[in-house]
Amino acid sequence: MSEVKDILQRVASGEMSPEEAELKLKLKPFEDLGYAKPDYHRALRQGTAEVIYGEGKTAEQIIGIAGALLRRGQKIVLITRLSDEKAENVNKEIPLEYHKDGRIGIIGKAPDEKIGKIVVATGGTSDIPVAEEAALTAEAFGNNVTRLYDVGVAGIHRLLSHSEDIMSAKAIIAIAGMEGALASVIGGLADCPVIAVPTSVGYGAAFGGLAALLSMLNSCASGVSVVNIDNGFGAGYLAGMINHMGV
Amino acid sequence: MSEVKDILQRVASGEMSPEEAELKLKLKPFEDLGYAKPDYHRALRQGTAEVIYGEGKTAEQIIGIAGALLRRGQKIVLITRLSDEKAENVNKEIPLEYHKDGRIGIIGKAPDEKIGKIVVATGGTSDIPVAEEAALTAEAFGNNVTRLYDVGVAGIHRLLSHSEDIMSAKAIIAIAGMEGALASVIGGLADCPVIAVPTSVGYGAAFGGLAALLSMLNSCASGVSVVNIDNGFGAGYLAGMINHMGV
Amino acid sequence: MSEVKDILQRVASGEMSPEEAELKLKLKPFEDLGYAKPDYHRALRQGTAEVIYGEGKTAEQIIGIAGALLRRGQKIVLITRLSDEKAENVNKEIPLEYHKDGRIGIIGKAPDEKIGKIVVATGGTSDIPVAEEAALTAEAFGNNVTRLYDVGVAGIHRLLSHSEDIMSAKAIIAIAGMEGALASVIGGLADCPVIAVPTSVGYGAAFGGLAALLSMLNSCASGVSVVNIDNGFGAGYLAGMINHMGV
Amino acid sequence: MSEVKDILQRVASGEMSPEEAELKLKLKPFEDLGYAKPDYHRALRQGTAEVIYGEGKTAEQIIGIAGALLRRGQKIVLITRLSDEKAENVNKEIPLEYHKDGRIGIIGKAPDEKIGKIVVATGGTSDIPVAEEAALTAEAFGNNVTRLYDVGVAGIHRLLSHSEDIMSAKAIIAIAGMEGALASVIGGLADCPVIAVPTSVGYGAAFGGLAALLSMLNSCASGVSVVNIDNGFGAGYLAGMINHMGV
Amino acid sequence: MSEVKDILQRVASGEMSPEEAELKLKLKPFEDLGYAKPDYHRALRQGTAEVIYGEGKTAEQIIGIAGALLRRGQKIVLITRLSDEKAENVNKEIPLEYHKDGRIGIIGKAPDEKIGKIVVATGGTSDIPVAEEAALTAEAFGNNVTRLYDVGVAGIHRLLSHSEDIMSAKAIIAIAGMEGALASVIGGLADCPVIAVPTSVGYGAAFGGLAALLSMLNSCASGVSVVNIDNGFGAGYLAGMINHMGV
Amino acid sequence: MSEVKDILQRVASGEMSPEEAELKLKLKPFEDLGYAKPDYHRALRQGTAEVIYGEGKTAEQIIGIAGALLRRGQKIVLITRLSDEKAENVNKEIPLEYHKDGRIGIIGKAPDEKIGKIVVATGGTSDIPVAEEAALTAEAFGNNVTRLYDVGVAGIHRLLSHSEDIMSAKAIIAIAGMEGALASVIGGLADCPVIAVPTSVGYGAAFGGLAALLSMLNSCASGVSVVNIDNGFGAGYLAGMINHMGV
Amino acid sequence: MSEVKDILQRVASGEMSPEEAELKLKLKPFEDLGYAKPDYHRALRQGTAEVIYGEGKTAEQIIGIAGALLRRGQKIVLITRLSDEKAENVNKEIPLEYHKDGRIGIIGKAPDEKIGKIVVATGGTSDIPVAEEAALTAEAFGNNVTRLYDVGVAGIHRLLSHSEDIMSAKAIIAIAGMEGALASVIGGLADCPVIAVPTSVGYGAAFGGLAALLSMLNSCASGVSVVNIDNGFGAGYLAGMINHMGV
Amino acid sequence: MSEVKDILQRVASGEMSPEEAELKLKLKPFEDLGYAKPDYHRALRQGTAEVIYGEGKTAEQIIGIAGALLRRGQKIVLITRLSDEKAENVNKEIPLEYHKDGRIGIIGKAPDEKIGKIVVATGGTSDIPVAEEAALTAEAFGNNVTRLYDVGVAGIHRLLSHSEDIMSAKAIIAIAGMEGALASVIGGLADCPVIAVPTSVGYGAAFGGLAALLSMLNSCASGVSVVNIDNGFGAGYLAGMINHMGV
Repeated sequence: MSEVKDILQRVASGEMSPEEAELKLKLKPFEDLGYAKPDYHRALRQGTAEVIYGEGKTAEQIIGIAGALLRRGQKIVLITRLSDEKAENVNKEIPLEYHKDGRIGIIGKAPDEKIGKIVVATGGTSDIPVAEEAALTAEAFGNNVTRLYDVGVAGIHRLLSHSEDIMSAKAIIAIAGMEGALASVIGGLADCPVIAVPTSVGYGAAFGGLAALLSMLNSCASGVSVVNIDNGFGAGYLAGMINHMGV
Repeated sequence: MSEVKDILQRVASGEMSPEEAELKLKLKPFEDLGYAKPDYHRALRQGTAEVIYGEGKTAEQIIGIAGALLRRGQKIVLITRLSDEKAENVNKEIPLEYHKDGRIGIIGKAPDEKIGKIVVATGGTSDIPVAEEAALTAEAFGNNVTRLYDVGVAGIHRLLSHSEDIMSAKAIIAIAGMEGALASVIGGLADCPVIAVPTSVGYGAAFGGLAALLSMLNSCASGVSVVNIDNGFGAGYLAGMINHMGV
Repeated sequence: MSEVKDILQRVASGEMSPEEAELKLKLKPFEDLGYAKPDYHRALRQGTAEVIYGEGKTAEQIIGIAGALLRRGQKIVLITRLSDEKAENVNKEIPLEYHKDGRIGIIGKAPDEKIGKIVVATGGTSDIPVAEEAALTAEAFGNNVTRLYDVGVAGIHRLLSHSEDIMSAKAIIAIAGMEGALASVIGGLADCPVIAVPTSVGYGAAFGGLAALLSMLNSCASGVSVVNIDNGFGAGYLAGMINHMGV
Repeated sequence: MSEVKDILQRVASGEMSPEEAELKLKLKPFEDLGYAKPDYHRALRQGTAEVIYGEGKTAEQIIGIAGALLRRGQKIVLITRLSDEKAENVNKEIPLEYHKDGRIGIIGKAPDEKIGKIVVATGGTSDIPVAEEAALTAEAFGNNVTRLYDVGVAGIHRLLSHSEDIMSAKAIIAIAGMEGALASVIGGLADCPVIAVPTSVGYGAAFGGLAALLSMLNSCASGVSVVNIDNGFGAGYLAGMINHMGV
Repeated sequence: MSEVKDILQRVASGEMSPEEAELKLKLKPFEDLGYAKPDYHRALRQGTAEVIYGEGKTAEQIIGIAGALLRRGQKIVLITRLSDEKAENVNKEIPLEYHKDGRIGIIGKAPDEKIGKIVVATGGTSDIPVAEEAALTAEAFGNNVTRLYDVGVAGIHRLLSHSEDIMSAKAIIAIAGMEGALASVIGGLADCPVIAVPTSVGYGAAFGGLAALLSMLNSCASGVSVVNIDNGFGAGYLAGMINHMGV
Repeated sequence: MSEVKDILQRVASGEMSPEEAELKLKLKPFEDLGYAKPDYHRALRQGTAEVIYGEGKTAEQIIGIAGALLRRGQKIVLITRLSDEKAENVNKEIPLEYHKDGRIGIIGKAPDEKIGKIVVATGGTSDIPVAEEAALTAEAFGNNVTRLYDVGVAGIHRLLSHSEDIMSAKAIIAIAGMEGALASVIGGLADCPVIAVPTSVGYGAAFGGLAALLSMLNSCASGVSVVNIDNGFGAGYLAGMINHMGV
Repeated sequence: MSEVKDILQRVASGEMSPEEAELKLKLKPFEDLGYAKPDYHRALRQGTAEVIYGEGKTAEQIIGIAGALLRRGQKIVLITRLSDEKAENVNKEIPLEYHKDGRIGIIGKAPDEKIGKIVVATGGTSDIPVAEEAALTAEAFGNNVTRLYDVGVAGIHRLLSHSEDIMSAKAIIAIAGMEGALASVIGGLADCPVIAVPTSVGYGAAFGGLAALLSMLNSCASGVSVVNIDNGFGAGYLAGMINHMGV
Repeated sequence: MSEVKDILQRVASGEMSPEEAELKLKLKPFEDLGYAKPDYHRALRQGTAEVIYGEGKTAEQIIGIAGALLRRGQKIVLITRLSDEKAENVNKEIPLEYHKDGRIGIIGKAPDEKIGKIVVATGGTSDIPVAEEAALTAEAFGNNVTRLYDVGVAGIHRLLSHSEDIMSAKAIIAIAGMEGALASVIGGLADCPVIAVPTSVGYGAAFGGLAALLSMLNSCASGVSVVNIDNGFGAGYLAGMINHMGV
C-alpha cells in the first residue's frame, strides 16, 4: 500500500496529474489475451519460473500465453500436463525441453544452482509420472531433489534403508496410489513437512485415487498435508517454497 | 447326500414309510420362534460356540434364542453387540459373563485349552473396543490371542519392536481407523493371512470408517483381506477358523 | 533377530570388523533398479513363485524386474494384469506361458505336485477372467483348484448341486459382480474360509463393482472376508496360504 | 374425459349455464387445509383405504387430514410412520388401532374378507418393523399375508423349507438389510413379481441401507423390482395391487 | 415337492431302485457348458421365451448357450445387450432377428397372440433404446405394448393428452434419465403398477443415471417400484408378468 | 471507481492531505467485532433488510452483530436459523418478532408496501418450515408472496388447479424433498425464473436431500436454477431480487 | 382458462357443437413425430427462439424436429450440444450457422436488437466452451453479453479490475471448474442475480465437476443459484429471462 | 544410523557385551501402557510440546499417558479434542489450562518467546472453534499468531483490508466451511505456504465439510495444501513447523 501513498504524494506535489494517478492505480498487472489473462505479479515477485497449466488449452493458446510471458521478461516458463503432440507444436514456435515422463515442457533454463533437499518418494513404479512432474517442477524452481521410487509400505525395509535421506530432507513429497499409506509412515519418520500426493494408480476400490486421498487426509502422523490427486506440480511448487524457507 | 440314499434304502426295505421319509427329508435343522429361526447345523458340526448378533434384538428375543440353543445342547453362546442394559436383562434369566469393552456376553464357559496364535493389533487406543470383540470371540472359540494395542504406523518402531509376534502368528487381525495403513505394513511383515478390520474411529474425511475401509481394500500387501467396518466378531471368527487349520 | 546377535558375537570374537557388521546390518534385501526395488525376502522365505503386477509398467520394466528376480535364483515368476501386447514383448526376451483369459504370464514352471483343495466359484460367465486370475495364481503356488463357473444365486439349485465340492474345500473363492450375493450363500454352506471377490461386471447401479463390494462386506455369513474389486490374484494368493495351512 | 362431453351436452341443452359448467370443470377433487391438500380421487376410485404419511406432520395436522377424509366418506385411513406419542394424541380425537411394531395406526376397520396370497419375508429379526409395515398395509387393503421372518441366505435351508409358500404366492415382498441377497435368491425361486425392500439394518459399510439397495437393484433374478430403503408401506401397497390383479 | 413323494412311493412299491431314485433326485435341471450353466427350469415352467444376457459373453458362448436351449426344446430365445457385430456372428450359426434400437436379438418367433396392455413411456427421445429393449421384451413374452415416447414432465400436457392410455394400462413402464420425474407423475395418474427405469441419459450431475435412480426410489406416488439403470429388459419382463396376472 | 478520482482531485486541489486520502481509500466498510465483521456495504446500497445467519452463533454474538448493524442505522435485521431458545435470549436485549415455523427472527418492521408476486410452492406438508423461511424472507424484503403448499406431482391436478398463480408470478420458489420433481413440472408451466429448493425431507435413499438436489439440478425444464438443500432464505432473497427487477 | 369459458359460451349459443368443443379442448399443442413431440406452446408465447438438445439425437431426428418447428412458423431454432459431424449433416438439409466453441447451431437469425447486460465470466481458459454455450444462447434470445474470461479467484485483481462490469450487469453467469470459488466472490460484489455454472474442468478430486458444484451450492453469498454441471445453455436462457425483466 | 556403528565399535573394543548391545539396539523409545504406547522420540528430538488426541480416550487413559510423558521429562503436554467434562476430571489429577473454544487442554506452560508470524484466517464466525485449536497449538509450539476471523470471500474487501498481514506471514492457515473458497483467494494473495482446513460448518450440500474439502483440494492457487476436515491441530502443528524453518 505504500505505493498508493507514493502516488498520492506525487499528485499532491503536482508531479502527477489526477488522471495519470487514476490510471496508475488501475493498471492491470496482467495482460488480456481474451482467452487468458496471464498474471505478471507472481513472476515479478519471485523472479523465477512462471507456469502454464497445459491441459484444456490448445497449442495456439499455450504459445500465446508463453509468448506474452517471455515478452514481459520471464526467463523460465514451465508448461505442465503437456501432451507429446502439443509439445511438438509449441516447439515449432518456441523451443522447449520436453520431459515425457512428467509431461512437462520447460522454456528457458532451470537455475544451475540448486539449494536444500527435497525428497520425492513413491509407493510404486506406476506413480513415477506424477513424481517426475513434482521433481522437475522443484528443480525448475532451484531445489535439489532426491528421488526414492518404489518404496511402498508393504516392504517397509525398502523405505527404512533410506532413513537418512528422510531425516535430512527439508521437505518430503510422498506419492502413492492404492492405499496411500506411504505418507503416514514417512510422516512418522520425518521431522520436516510432508506433502502427500495421492495418485490415480490402482483399480477397483481405488476409485481413481479416492482411496489414497482419504487415507492421506486421515494420516495419524503430524506434519502431513495433502494436495489434489495426481497433482505433482502443486506438491513440487509447495515443497520448493518450504525448502527455500529452510535454507 | 449319503443320508438321502440311506433313507431311500430304508424305504425300499420297508423299514420306513414313504410318509416318514418325506418328513425326514423335509426336517428343518432349525427351530422357528416366529421372530427368529436359530440354526443348529453349525453348532452340531463344530461343537463349539454359537453366536447371537445382539443389536436390533430385544432382551426378550435374545433370551428366547439363547434358550432354544441351550435346550438343543449348545454349551457356549456368544452374544455380540450387547449393550450394558440388555446384558443386565438377559442375565436375570440366563447368567452370562459380560465384557463391557468388547460389548460381548458369554453364556457358558470358553474352552480352557487354547491353541495356536492369533495376533490382534490396533492402530490406536480408540480401536480397542473392536479389538476386544475380536479377541474375546477368538478366545471363546479356543484360540490363543496376543494383543498388540496402539502400534499405528506413524510410529513404525512400536510395530517393528513386535516383529517376533508378527512372524510367529498363524493369523493376524489388523484393526485401524483413520487411514488404516496398519494392515498394509503388517501384511508386508507377516507370512500368515492378515484380516483387516477398518474402524469408524476418526473424524472428518474418515467418513465413519470409509477411508480405512478403502485403504485396506487397496492394500498392496499380499495375503490381506477385509471384513466390514467395526466387525471385530467377523475377524475373530475367521482368524479362529484359519488358526485351527494351521495347528 | 537372532541374526543380529550372531553378527554381534562375530564382532565380539573378532571374526567380523565393525565396518563389515554395519554393512551386513544395512544390507538391502532388494535390488534397486531405479524405477523399481524388487524384493527378495519373500521369495527366499517361501521358495515358490514371485509376482510382478504388470499394469502401469512398461514391457522394458517388466523384463528388468523379472530378470533381476531370475538372476537371484527365483524359479517361477508370475506377471499379473499382463496385456496381450506386453506379453508378446516380454516373451521376446524371457520366454513365458501366457494365459489370455486370466491375463497372467508365467515364467518357469508351476509345481507339478499340488495339494489340498481350493474351490473357485463365479456368479456368471462374465466373471471368468477374474476367476482365471485367481485359479492360475493358486495353481502356480501349488494348490489343487476346482472351478465352479456360472453358479449364481438366482438359480440356487446350480450351486446346491455342488454342495459336496463346497463342503470339502479348504478355502473357497466366491467371485461375483452385480449383487454379489454368491459370497453369503456359499459362506452359509461352507465350513472353511471364504474369500469374496467383487467384480466390475454389471451395469447401471453396479457402479463398477461397488454394489458387489458393499454386498460382500455386509455378508451375514461368518467366515467371509473380501479383497479388492477384480482382485483375482489377491484371492488366489490368500486362498493358497490358507490351503497350505490346512494340509 | 366422457364427463367433459356430458357437461358440454348439458350446456348445449340449456340444462346447465356456462358459468356452472366452468365451475364444474374446475372443481377441485381435493380439499385445501392450507398445510395439506388431501386427495379424494384415489379414495373414490378404489373404495378402500386412504393413507397419511405420519412423519414430519404434527398430531394436529394428522387429525385435520384424517378428519377431512372421514368427512368425505372414507371408511379406512392408514397412518404410517406414526410414533407412539403422536398415536396417543391422535387417538384422543379420532380412535385408532395402533400397531407399534409396524408404526402404523388404522382408523376404521380393515376388510374382513382377504384374498390371494402375499408372502412377506425378512432376512433377519431386525427387519421385522419394516416387514410389519408392509404386512399391515397389505392386510388393510384386503390381502392375505404369510409372514416368513429370519430366513436370510446365510442359512439357505431355512428359506428352502418354505419353497411351497414361495411357489404359491401371487406377490412376494423380500425385506433385508446388510447385503440384501434375499431378493435375488427368492427371485430365482419364485414365478411371481418380487418387491425388494432394502432396510437400514446393519452397520459399517451397510451405509444406512445403501449396500442392500444397490445389491437389490443389481439382482440377477428376473421379476425383481425395488422400493426405497425401509419403505414397507410402498411394498405392501404395490404387492396388494398386484395380488388383486392375479385373483 | 409332490415329485419327491411320487418318487418315494415308486421306490416303496419296487417300481424304482434306490439308486435310480437318488439319481432322479439329484438330476440337474440345467446343463453344464463349463463357462455357463443354462437353466431349463424356468423355460419348462413358463413355456415361453428364454433369455441370454449378451454383454460380457463372446459370440461363441452365446451360440453355445442358445444351441443348448434350442436342443432342450426352447422355442424362443431372447439375447439382450447384443452388439451389432456379435449379432452378425451369432446369425451365421443360428438365424436371429436383430433389433438394433433395443440391442436385442430374437431366435424363433414371438407369439402372435398378444394380450392385455403395457404402456412404455419415455421422458425424452434419447431414452428410446432402453424403451425398445423393454417393449421388445414384453412383446416377445406375448404382451400388447403401447409406446408413448418423449412425454417428459417439463411439458406436462404431452403426458396428460395420453391420460386414457395411462388409465387403461395393466402395467406401465416409465423410463427417464435426467431428473426422472416421469415415474412420479405417471404414478399419480395410474391405477396399475408402475415400473420405473432410470436411464443413464443426461450429463453433469446426472452421474450416469444416479439422479434419476434416486429420484425414482423416492417417488411420492404409490405403486411405483424401480429396476436398475438402463434395465429395459428387467422392466419389460416384470411388466409382462404383471400384465398376464391382470388378464 | 469515480470516488477514487474525486478523492484524487481533492488531493490535487489541496482540499485533502495525502494522509487523509490514504485513510479514506483504506476505510473499512465493515466493523470488526473480533468474532465477526458485519458488512455495511450491502445495507447502504439496498436500504432494506440486513441478515444474520443464526446457526453456529451464540445469542451473545447475534446480539453483538445486530446491535452493531442497528447502530449504523439499519432499520430491519433478519436472523435466520434461529432456535426458540436463542430467540428468547436475543429478545431480552433487542425486541424481535419470532416466526417459529420458519425459524426466523425479525428486528424492526418489514415494509408495508409489497410489490410484484412471488409464488412459494411445496411438494408436501413437511416442506413447510423451509417454505416459511423463504416466504418470510421475501416478505421482509417487500415482496408479495402467494403460498401453495402440498401440491406435489403425485397428485398433479392439485398443482394444475393453481395454473393461474403460476402463470402470473414474477418468480417462483419450488420446494420439495423426496424426488424433487415439483421444480421440473412448475418449470414447464411457468414463464418466469423458478428457484428450486431441495429439502432434507424424506428417508432412505433421499440421503438428506441429495435425491431432490440431483433431481432439481437435472431438471429438463428451462429457467430453473437451484440453491442449497433447505436454503429457504437464499431462495427467498434471490426471488425478491428478481421480483423487484420485474416490476 | 378464459378460453374454456369462451368455448363453453359458443356451445351455449349454438355456435359450436359439443363434439367440436370437446375436440378443441383436447387439441394437442405439440406435434407427434413418434420419436419426439416438439412443443409449440413456448414458441408461441415467447415469439423468439426454440431449442433442440442435440446430444443423444441423430442428425435425422434433429432435422425432423427442426423442420416441424419451422413449418409451424418458428423463426429461430437453437441446437445445443451439436457435434461438428452432426452439424454438417443437418446443414445439408437445413442451413445453419455453427459455433464450434459453444457446440451450438443456429437456424435463422438472432435478433439484431439486443437489450440489457449479461456478464459471462469464467475462472479459466478451459471453461470457455461452456461460457460460449451460455453467451451464444443469451445472444440468440436478444441479450447483450459481456465476456470476462480467465478471471479466476487465485488472481483476484484480474476480477476486481472488472468491478464496473460486475456492478452494472442485470444478470451474471459465473462459470468455473476446479474449486468453483468464482461464484461466491462475484456474488459478494454484485447486486444482481448470479447464475453459477460448475464445469467438469479439472482433475483428480474435481470428480467431473462435483467439487465445483458443491462449492457453488454452498456459496455464502446471497443471490447465487446453480444450474447443472456444464449447463451453459440453461444459464444463458435463465440469465436472458432475468435480463429481460430488468429492462 | 551412526549410533549403530558406535555400539558396534564398543562391542569390538570390549566396552560392551554382545548381550548389552542387542538390548540397546532393541530398546523401545516408547512406554507400553497396554492401552497406549506413548512415543518419546519426537519429544526428545523437538524438545517442545507433546500431544495427546483426547477423543475416544477416557479421562483415566489421558491421565495415564500424560503422566508417563511427564515422568519422562516432557515439559508441555497438549490434549486436543478434550471435552469440558474430561478436562475437569484430568484436572483433578494433573492441573491443566483448559481452552473451551478450541477444546484444548495444556499441561505445563507454552514458551514465552514466540517467533515468526502465522496468520489464522476463518471464513465465518462458526469456524472459530477449529481456528482456536489451530492457533492455540501454534502458540504452544512457540509461534506468533495473528487471528483474522470472519473474512469470508463473499465480502472480499474484509479480506483485502488485511493484505499486509497476509503478505508478511511465514505460513497461513485458511479455515472455512461451506464452499471453502477462502483458501484459493488467500493462496492467490500470499507468497508463503497456505494450509487449508475445511470445516464441517454448513448445512445441506456441505455434507459435513465435504464441499469445502473438495473445493480446497481443487484450489487453482499454488502453494496450498489441505489437512483433514476440522483438523485445527494438524494445521497449527504444520504451520509451526514451516514458520520455524522460515525464521
